Amino acid sequence: MVTAPLRLGLLSTAKINQLVIAGVPEMVEIVAVASRDGARARAYAHEHRIARPHGSYEALLADPDVDAVYVSLPNGLHHEWTMRALAAGKHVLCEKPYSRQPAEVEEAWDAASAGGLVLAEAFMYRHHPQIRRTKELVEAGAIGRLRMIRSSFSVRLLDLGDIRMLSDLDGGALMDLGCYCVNASRLLGGEPERVLGEQVLARSGVDFDFLGTMRFPGDVVAQFEAFFSLPSRQRLEAVGEQGAVVLDAPWRPDWGFTVTLARGEEVEIVDVQ
Amino acid sequence: MVTAPLRLGLLSTAKINQLVIAGVPEMVEIVAVASRDGARARAYAHEHRIARPHGSYEALLADPDVDAVYVSLPNGLHHEWTMRALAAGKHVLCEKPYSRQPAEVEEAWDAASAGGLVLAEAFMYRHHPQIRRTKELVEAGAIGRLRMIRSSFSVRLLDLGDIRMLSDLDGGALMDLGCYCVNASRLLGGEPERVLGEQVLARSGVDFDFLGTMRFPGDVVAQFEAFFSLPSRQRLEAVGEQGAVVLDAPWRPDWGFTVTLARGEEVEIVDVQ
Repeated sequence: MVTAPLRLGLLSTAKINQLVIAGVPEMVEIVAVASRDGARARAYAHEHRIARPHGSYEALLADPDVDAVYVSLPNGLHHEWTMRALAAGKHVLCEKPYSRQPAEVEEAWDAASAGGLVLAEAFMYRHHPQIRRTKELVEAGAIGRLRMIRSSFSVRLLDLGDIRMLSDLDGGALMDLGCYCVNASRLLGGEPERVLGEQVLARSGVDFDFLGTMRFPGDVVAQFEAFFSLPSRQRLEAVGEQGAVVLDAPWRPDWGFTVTLARGEEVEIVDVQ
Repeated sequence: MVTAPLRLGLLSTAKINQLVIAGVPEMVEIVAVASRDGARARAYAHEHRIARPHGSYEALLADPDVDAVYVSLPNGLHHEWTMRALAAGKHVLCEKPYSRQPAEVEEAWDAASAGGLVLAEAFMYRHHPQIRRTKELVEAGAIGRLRMIRSSFSVRLLDLGDIRMLSDLDGGALMDLGCYCVNASRLLGGEPERVLGEQVLARSGVDFDFLGTMRFPGDVVAQFEAFFSLPSRQRLEAVGEQGAVVLDAPWRPDWGFTVTLARGEEVEIVDVQ
């Protein structure tokens, strides 16, 4: 059986698109790109050999030859444009995190479900085999009863004019970095029963640094840290009564990674396929 | 100048005494031991070659040839016996943590000061050169501006009848293990402006596991974990904008330890004298 490739449109010309363009698989074809500026859309389409530039997001959504859109807009615009894309009958891959408003999340996933459309948050790290392997190890009892999940993600942000520093576009360390830690903690721990947080505010009003604590069913607890003030750090640990699984590059395994399983005195580098 | 050794009395026959006896320096002489049970005191004195056994704590405090006492009683008894010892004119080395009641701490240190006596909490880890070196490195700017302190101390507690599980003697993971993390965080960060905690309760009512978050002046934040449910873990990290100092055995350096200073791509094992 031959299936036609999924025809993807890029909603915005954000820098992060480059990673999607570079990694696009055979079953996906990037057919269109939209910018609020027509000239910019044309230049971008030319540079990246994308067939159809659109001078507005609306025009891209009206394009009948687009099956799905990648919403790479700033956090604060995710919901509006995802809802419009779903209303136009498009599947949506939306940058993480979808929204800071739980009601918006419910509304969007309900709309996708009602329309028979796929809506996914671009937590790409979840699709790497090291995470699948980690979840399997924890569920198979390799570390005994799970007790703690620890994670960190820091990236030094020196440009205080960066979009991630803007409060009206839902910037901040929790939204940009900590969301990975929250996501992975929930992947392993389930739905939290209680959360605590401490933030260091930037002058712009967003959290520059964020420390989180989560309590899960079965006496599992999680701690995480997300800093714009610190040089790059990333780590994920699942710690149980008999051992621990440690990932030294959970969020960007494409930079090189190691999965370690420690039990008593034994330390094993886990083979990840 | 020749100084007579300090004459120390052991107030209780707790197991932890053994570490003090084994490490007693030349300028200290252990001259007396007390137990509520006279026979026990005599057997203990005989076994450890201590000159004078006392069949009550009061008797030891009345001994004029005792200059100082080591209070190795459970947490919940520290204050009562420290106050009595100070009233008897003795210097006091009290097991950690002194008390969970701030008012008791104030009262005791005020009493010591008024009597011209030394009162110290037995946070022995603070006297190891690796901690002095760490504090020096942080203060000298070796890691740039300090932003985060992370620490952990876990010891698996399988005996649920252990004294550390008893709520009326002020047991629990925060009091027994987390107190080291709190102490070291304050050593590096100063006095916290705000604290958050999440506990997993044991059936006895004490915290079996504890996660803490602290906020210090100058946007420094700290996180720590203390678990009775996990196998041995200990670690202390001071993380700054330019690097990090990591101690792999901050609380029991006598078991072997490494101090690592990481800056950019450089990782150095710090020489500790």
